[in-house]
This record gives sequence, structure tokens and C-alpha cells, in this order.
Amino acid sequence: MKSFTEYLEKQGELIEKQLDRLIPEHSSPYKHLYEAARYSVLSGGKRLRPILVLATTDMLNGDLELALSPACTLEIVHTYSLIHDDLPCMDDDDYRRGKLTLHKKYSEGHAVLTGDFLLTYAFEILAEHQHLKPETKVKLISTLAKRIGSNGMIGGQVMDIASEGKKISLETLRLLHRNKTGALITASVEFGGIISNASEVQMESLRCYGENIGLAFQIIDDILDVTSSEAKHGRKVASDLVNEKSTYVTLLGIEKSKALAEESYQKAIDALNIFTPNGSRLKNLADFIINRNH
Amino acid sequence: MKSFTEYLEKQGELIEKQLDRLIPEHSSPYKHLYEAARYSVLSGGKRLRPILVLATTDMLNGDLELALSPACTLEIVHTYSLIHDDLPCMDDDDYRRGKLTLHKKYSEGHAVLTGDFLLTYAFEILAEHQHLKPETKVKLISTLAKRIGSNGMIGGQVMDIASEGKKISLETLRLLHRNKTGALITASVEFGGIISNASEVQMESLRCYGENIGLAFQIIDDILDVTSSEAKHGRKVASDLVNEKSTYVTLLGIEKSKALAEESYQKAIDALNIFTPNGSRLKNLADFIINRNH
Repeated sequence: MKSFTEYLEKQGELIEKQLDRLIPEHSSPYKHLYEAARYSVLSGGKRLRPILVLATTDMLNGDLELALSPACTLEIVHTYSLIHDDLPCMDDDDYRRGKLTLHKKYSEGHAVLTGDFLLTYAFEILAEHQHLKPETKVKLISTLAKRIGSNGMIGGQVMDIASEGKKISLETLRLLHRNKTGALITASVEFGGIISNASEVQMESLRCYGENIGLAFQIIDDILDVTSSEAKHGRKVASDLVNEKSTYVTLLGIEKSKALAEESYQKAIDALNIFTPNGSRLKNLADFIINRNH
Repeated sequence: MKSFTEYLEKQGELIEKQLDRLIPEHSSPYKHLYEAARYSVLSGGKRLRPILVLATTDMLNGDLELALSPACTLEIVHTYSLIHDDLPCMDDDDYRRGKLTLHKKYSEGHAVLTGDFLLTYAFEILAEHQHLKPETKVKLISTLAKRIGSNGMIGGQVMDIASEGKKISLETLRLLHRNKTGALITASVEFGGIISNASEVQMESLRCYGENIGLAFQIIDDILDVTSSEAKHGRKVASDLVNEKSTYVTLLGIEKSKALAEESYQKAIDALNIFTPNGSRLKNLADFIINRNH
């Protein structure tokens, strides 16, 4: 596994540098907007989504240079969603990745606007890319907008706040998370496919992989919310329980949740068969998701 | 002027119908998201921005069919900005266009997400347009993202909340409003130009027109905030004074503000010279802005 850990680190560094370039320190009058954006974006997340874009592009022999900025847009969008999700009127979280959430560090108004900026900026980066063809840009923009729109991430968020304090069915929970978490993870492998001109059959396998690791990711997240300590997880322990949210753990218990995560993992691995022998990075990433402890 | 009033009404109807098509009533599980989006978008604004797109396209002999959905995206983006601007952590307004603001009608969380949805959806509509060329879509998306990003609308909003309760210079106020209000109005005429394949010289004149009517629009808004009654204006009277905001009126007084609006109006009209004899609709729209009483 050493070489995969090195791979993760190296990709992480590439992404970190590009994010730093995309959101530079800035002079007045927008100083505070960039400062807040940097505070949230450059706060050391796992960079799972951009790494998925790069790993998929690599697997399909696509151009990694071309993929780097589009990969970063998914981290930028992910960050926007966390900023708005943490707001007092949503999940009301004070800490994120072990640091004060943006509205605690600055103000609520500033956090709303910084999220708006990051979302808007992601589309600007894609439209302004110097080397992608217009057709490719349009595909990326359309994929992103759909995956994070009403039938994707935002739809999942709406279901999430609507189901707070209620017991919901496993089916509803699954749809909720397929949208809220799964859609952006699926977009990540789709991005790699689009940049590498993948065939429709390949795109289908990528989507199947993405949806299943997205599901496994969320289940593991729910399990960690219960079992992990605040120091490790960087959030209040069991905030889902405090907020009376239905989770895989509250609906199925820990053992059955683990089994469902394992099943999703297996489906994701099976979807990689058509890429043999190039699927090892995506397999490693699935392993990483299922075995992570924070 | 009768024919212009009829023109406004007819364009308004076209836009209303298209907005209704773009954001239809929706069944579960996203019912509430579409319901809230419709509540805000279909609440009878002046539709100034989409009308500017159509009038510019018409002036340049562009294809009005092609322009209709892109025109609507600017109204959708305008609505998202109003929803977030009205939030308690921003301007804290209870009424908008004579109706409860979205966070009052639903909840703050729901208002944040509905705004996020509308912003995202605007980009989806542009990327998914059935008949525009990819090059044109990319130009529209890039223009929109820049005009509403850090160097445009959101930048203006950030300056706005940063300057609350402070006395700011006329220069700062001008930059603030060029971004906050002017940028999206300028984007409207740019959209018409892009769809009609305008030359760079024509685009420059359109931008000059857009920036100047944007400025006139904001000055008139500041004047109306002081002089208009709540019933007419659909908002609390003089909310800017209550919020201790610097405005053209507080910095210059009403008479000098009127003179500045008149000067901007004249610059806008002059910019239309190169389009003679086709610029009459845009001239009428400038007249409409300078003479409006709500």
C-alpha cells in the first residue's frame, strides 16, 4: 500500500497547488471574499473528489494537465456545499475539519456570499479553461450543474432538512444520500471520463462505480459519526444523533450498515472489470473509502 | 409611448410563460424546492433584465427564439440574488414585491437552498440549450459567471455588507453598485450581443449602454427608497436609512442624485448612436428606467 499512499500524497499536492493558484490572495476591495474562500478551500480536506477525477483520467489515458483545473472545481463546489450546510439555519455546526466553520470565523452573511462565490467561480473556471474544446466544456458544465442541482446535491439537501426529526424509510434515506453525497462523487468520475473521451459503455461503468462508492462513503460516514472521537473526526461526536437525523446506523444498526457498505464496495469493484488492467487506482480509492477512520 | 407599453407587456408575457415552463410544478421528492422557486421567480417583477436581452437581440436582428431561455436565466439569477440578499444575516427584509420574502414564507434553510438551486439551474439551462452552438454557450456561461462573481455581483454584495453603518466615498459607492446592480444589467445586453454575433465594437457600445443604465437604475432606486410609499415600492420605506447605508441620496442629496442619473442616462443614449436607426427600444428602456416610480 505504500505506493498508493505516496500516490495520494502526490495528487493531493498537485491539487493543493492548483487550488492555491485558482484562489490567490487578493487585494482590496474583494480581499475578504478571497480570504474567506481560501480559509475554507485550503483547509486540508481529503481531496477525494479531485483525486477521483485525476485517477479516472489516468486510467483512461487522458491528459492529466487538462484535468487538473476541472478536478479542482469539484473540490470548490464541495466546499461551497459544506459552508452553506454548516450555517445556523441548516446543520448549525461550529467546527469543520477541526477549525471554526466559516460563519463562526467571519459572519453568516459573509459565509452565504463566500459559498455563492465558490459555486459561481467553479462554472467560470470550466468556461474559461484555456485548452479544453467548447464541446468538452459544455459537457462538464452540464454534468456539474445537473449533479449538484435539484435532482442531485441540492435536492438531497432539501430532502435532508425536510426529514430532520422524522423517521424516514431506508429507500428515502438512500435517495437522499444518492443525491446529497453520491451525485458529486459520481460527477468526479464522469469528469475524468468526459476529459478522456470515454465511450458510453465506459461512462456507464464509471457511473456505477461512482454511485456505489458514494453510497459506501456515506454509510461509513454515518458509522464514524457514532464511533469516532471528536479529535479524529474533527466534528462534534454523533451530531446526527443530537440532530435526530435518520442515518444508516439508526435505521439498520452498525453491523448491517457495515454489510451494506461492503456490498456497495463490491459492486463498485465489479464495475471496474472492463478497465482491466488499468483500474487499480480506482480500486485503491474504493479501499481507502471503506477503510478510512475519519 | 403606447406601442412601447404594449411591447413591454408582450415581452413580459413571453418571459413569464418561458419561466413557467423552465420551473414547472413538480411532484415529490423535490416538490418544495420547485414550489419555493416558483414562489420567488413567478412573483411579477419588472423582468427588466430578460427584456433587455430580447430588445438587444431584436436590435441586432438576432434570433429571438434562441434568446428566450438565456434571457430567463438572468431573471433566475436575479431572483437568487434577491433571495439571499433578503436573508436575516444580510438585509433582513420581510417583504419583497409586496409579498413575504422566501425565508419568511418557508424557512431560512429552505431559502438558502432555493437560491443555490436557482443559481445552479441558470448554468444548466445555458449548457443544455438545444439550439445554441457550444462556442456560444461557453461565451454566455463565461459572461454570466464573471458578471455575477467576485468582480461582479457577489463582489458588490460583499462591499455592501462591509460598508454597512460606515460612511463610504462616492467612488466606493459607485464601484459597489457597478458590481452589485450594474454587472447583471450589463450582462443582459451582452447576452443579446453574444446571441446575435455582435462585433467587438458593437459589444463595447452595448457595455457602455449597460453600465450607464445600471448606474441610473441604482440612483433612481436610492431616490425611490426615500420618496416612495411602501405600497408603491413593495418594501419598507427608506430601509436604507434604517440600515444606515450610504446611498447616492445620503452622499449627494436628492437633486444632485437626479442630475447624476440624468447624466448617466445621456451617456447610455449616446452609446446607442452606432445602432441607428434600430436603437429605439433600448432608448425606450432607458427612458423607462429613469422615469419609473417603483
